[in-house]
Amino acid sequence: MNLTLENLSKIIGGQLNGDGKIEIVRLANLETAKTGEISFVEKSEFSEHAQKTRASCLIVPENFNIELPCASINVKNPKLGFAKISEIIHAPERKIGIHKTAQIAENVKLGVGVYIGAFVSIGKTSSVGKGTQIQDGSRIGANVSIGENCFIRANAVVYDNVSIGNNVILHAGTVVGADGFGFVRDAEKYFKFPQIGTVVIEDDVEIGANTCIDRGALGETRIGRGTKIDNLVQIAHNVRIGDRVIIAAQTGISGSTVIEDDCIIGGQVGMGDHARVLKGAVIGSQAGVLPGKIVRSGVWWGTPVQPLDEYKRQNAHLKGISRLKEELKALKKQLDDLKNKPGN
Amino acid sequence: MNLTLENLSKIIGGQLNGDGKIEIVRLANLETAKTGEISFVEKSEFSEHAQKTRASCLIVPENFNIELPCASINVKNPKLGFAKISEIIHAPERKIGIHKTAQIAENVKLGVGVYIGAFVSIGKTSSVGKGTQIQDGSRIGANVSIGENCFIRANAVVYDNVSIGNNVILHAGTVVGADGFGFVRDAEKYFKFPQIGTVVIEDDVEIGANTCIDRGALGETRIGRGTKIDNLVQIAHNVRIGDRVIIAAQTGISGSTVIEDDCIIGGQVGMGDHARVLKGAVIGSQAGVLPGKIVRSGVWWGTPVQPLDEYKRQNAHLKGISRLKEELKALKKQLDDLKNKPGN
Amino acid sequence: MNLTLENLSKIIGGQLNGDGKIEIVRLANLETAKTGEISFVEKSEFSEHAQKTRASCLIVPENFNIELPCASINVKNPKLGFAKISEIIHAPERKIGIHKTAQIAENVKLGVGVYIGAFVSIGKTSSVGKGTQIQDGSRIGANVSIGENCFIRANAVVYDNVSIGNNVILHAGTVVGADGFGFVRDAEKYFKFPQIGTVVIEDDVEIGANTCIDRGALGETRIGRGTKIDNLVQIAHNVRIGDRVIIAAQTGISGSTVIEDDCIIGGQVGMGDHARVLKGAVIGSQAGVLPGKIVRSGVWWGTPVQPLDEYKRQNAHLKGISRLKEELKALKKQLDDLKNKPGN
Repeated sequence: MNLTLENLSKIIGGQLNGDGKIEIVRLANLETAKTGEISFVEKSEFSEHAQKTRASCLIVPENFNIELPCASINVKNPKLGFAKISEIIHAPERKIGIHKTAQIAENVKLGVGVYIGAFVSIGKTSSVGKGTQIQDGSRIGANVSIGENCFIRANAVVYDNVSIGNNVILHAGTVVGADGFGFVRDAEKYFKFPQIGTVVIEDDVEIGANTCIDRGALGETRIGRGTKIDNLVQIAHNVRIGDRVIIAAQTGISGSTVIEDDCIIGGQVGMGDHARVLKGAVIGSQAGVLPGKIVRSGVWWGTPVQPLDEYKRQNAHLKGISRLKEELKALKKQLDDLKNKPGN
Repeated sequence: MNLTLENLSKIIGGQLNGDGKIEIVRLANLETAKTGEISFVEKSEFSEHAQKTRASCLIVPENFNIELPCASINVKNPKLGFAKISEIIHAPERKIGIHKTAQIAENVKLGVGVYIGAFVSIGKTSSVGKGTQIQDGSRIGANVSIGENCFIRANAVVYDNVSIGNNVILHAGTVVGADGFGFVRDAEKYFKFPQIGTVVIEDDVEIGANTCIDRGALGETRIGRGTKIDNLVQIAHNVRIGDRVIIAAQTGISGSTVIEDDCIIGGQVGMGDHARVLKGAVIGSQAGVLPGKIVRSGVWWGTPVQPLDEYKRQNAHLKGISRLKEELKALKKQLDDLKNKPGN
Repeated sequence: MNLTLENLSKIIGGQLNGDGKIEIVRLANLETAKTGEISFVEKSEFSEHAQKTRASCLIVPENFNIELPCASINVKNPKLGFAKISEIIHAPERKIGIHKTAQIAENVKLGVGVYIGAFVSIGKTSSVGKGTQIQDGSRIGANVSIGENCFIRANAVVYDNVSIGNNVILHAGTVVGADGFGFVRDAEKYFKFPQIGTVVIEDDVEIGANTCIDRGALGETRIGRGTKIDNLVQIAHNVRIGDRVIIAAQTGISGSTVIEDDCIIGGQVGMGDHARVLKGAVIGSQAGVLPGKIVRSGVWWGTPVQPLDEYKRQNAHLKGISRLKEELKALKKQLDDLKNKPGN
């Protein structure tokens, strides 16, 4: 397919103003875009940059009525249109073939068009779906199922018996399926509680670099369809995460906690075990959710987590304590004066 | 050994009710256990699930007197018994041999029954004790000592001169012995303070995925016997951690801090340098310990860390500030009324 | 060069007292140093250890006038002198050559004296400057530029198109250039916002183990000259970090945030997106910086971040709430008494 404005405009369902034959080679920032590049404008406030742009085309909102020095495509959500075009113009490179150094055990099923990079190892009876790319140095255990069109980036590790869907991206250094953290103590030492469950990662999930997703103790840890997880996140055993959940970097979710569909979790959030975050809840960065807590939909903040409004009010109160002290002192003085008046 | 109930019952020192000849193939959750599987009941509250179980055997508390549809083993601590049985039934697979791709330098000593996986490298004069499993892509530096029956999981990295005891588990991506974070500044730039010490990991330690344990600056960083560390934990240079300490995910311990035996540290806890946590202390998740602080035994919470009771009281006070404000306002009003009364 | 006291003294610009012919083989702690070793004393308070030392030489402050049982070198900043000597005596081992297992793509430029370890892969059109050491299992993408005398430790991963300066250290497991975390939602699912920018790491930067530095979305993520970053740190897309910045372990910096030169950031700090930390600011561990916040120079603490003085005052107020409550109660009582007096 030619990357003409005519084609791109159709793909994002927009209305083109300008020469549909113009070809686009790259996406760029509004401030730096040059000829052959496309950028976008989210709101009319950025019109000054837009008016000066040297891009070949800008994606603009439907009600955008500022004259531009280039072609434009009107759509409802320009940033979304830009993202959709990116998937076409900047689709990650796909290779085909099995590197001569790769170590693939017996009874491994490889789909058509897979790429298995240098120094990759794949354990016995595993399967890799068509078009999936397993990059250099990654470790795929035994009896692992990986779907189609996945990207397993360099040096990622998938332990035995894990199941991964289609169109999943695991970034470099991510570890899926390590033992959960469970021990039972007797007088002398800790015994390992069995960590013999599995991890299921559904379709369209992306998992950041050096993130850890532990296997279930006896059951499974599950990451729902379309969920996106950032770098250095910890997902403990038996956690269940719903569909289309966003989890920012360095957040940690303790064992058996459930996060329902469409939640947004900030960075460095900590959740105790057996908590439940209900559909669509938003939890601000660095918040702390106590074990067993149920977090209803709405926006939550702080440790222990509370509704954002309450958090703000409490913070305002906190700032007000010193004034409270002064008022109390003044009141005391008045009362003393009153008591010392003749007649009291 | 046959995994009969008779044998298993002996191993965990329990009293068997039922057919000792029944063989067990797998551990399972109480809710999902089927024929050939064993599960456990911690308290009588779960008796409903127990009464309906399809497991072949349940491990139950000593005082458990509910009739069951299967065999049972009475022990003092059923969860502990379950963990002990797991070590037998679900012992991780051990391989033997040296993969043809492994790169082993000169003067490396390998014990009998070791497994060295694909693409592993081991530096000169290192030693690996009998039965130890070093999985694919792991890097063992020079002059490293690793004891017997360890599991070094895929892509773990051990720097030069580190010492690891027996029965140690390092999970995937863990880094042991990287340089500590110490610099000295002059006007123009930072110079690296020497990070030439070592790390000693004692017997029976388990370390989670992508955790980092830095080497001592001049001396050593030490992890005591039987200590269990979760994923993504940071242990800085010269930290000393005692025996049987539990450290949950994403906690960070700054340089030279000491954690004595039998402490339990929650997730995402941060400890400043040169702090000392005394034997048996428990520190809640997300707590912050200031540099140099001594944390006595007991339960601690919050930032800066305080005894749990105080933390709760303070949190309650915080919630009460708005009422305090209102009371103060009412008092003002009363005082004004009083002052305005004729005669005052 | 012989490591004699005469030579070492010259290198650190100090004044030697003692036999300049003595040779030093190792740096050590003051408490443990033996013959052939050198240590340092920062202040006169440690004089007791100094007087008993068995070291061959101590580096001491200029005004140090305690008699020692060994040679000494007087300098303005003994710790700095010690660090400078460490760079000579304990310079990390440099190897030369390309391991037979390394996979180097076409059109890769390798400088003289480079070391490429076992199981390393380097993508096409990348370049590695002279003397640089790329250790076992590291992954260098395509079109990556790495300067001179760098150390890329085992199993580090550098994605395509990243640029790394001279004298840079990447510790084991570090990931540079993974996709930033940016998605655009429509009704049904999240689309990936383009993450096609790059990372630029300037000269003299050190980055700890398992740290993640994401590539810019459209532009670049930049780490300034001489900056030092600890383990398990998250640097998001389009972050710009100035020169000589210190960032301790497990800190996370969200997208497009700017940290100017000479800042010091503690461990487990979280910064929202589009914040700006002005030159020389110091931010205490576990602090939280809100999105868009400008942090002026000075010392900052807490969540949301505030000047240390205010933080301390607020914490003191917090402790005082219970007294406030009691005072208010007493005042009420007095007022009631007054009101109930005959005549009121």
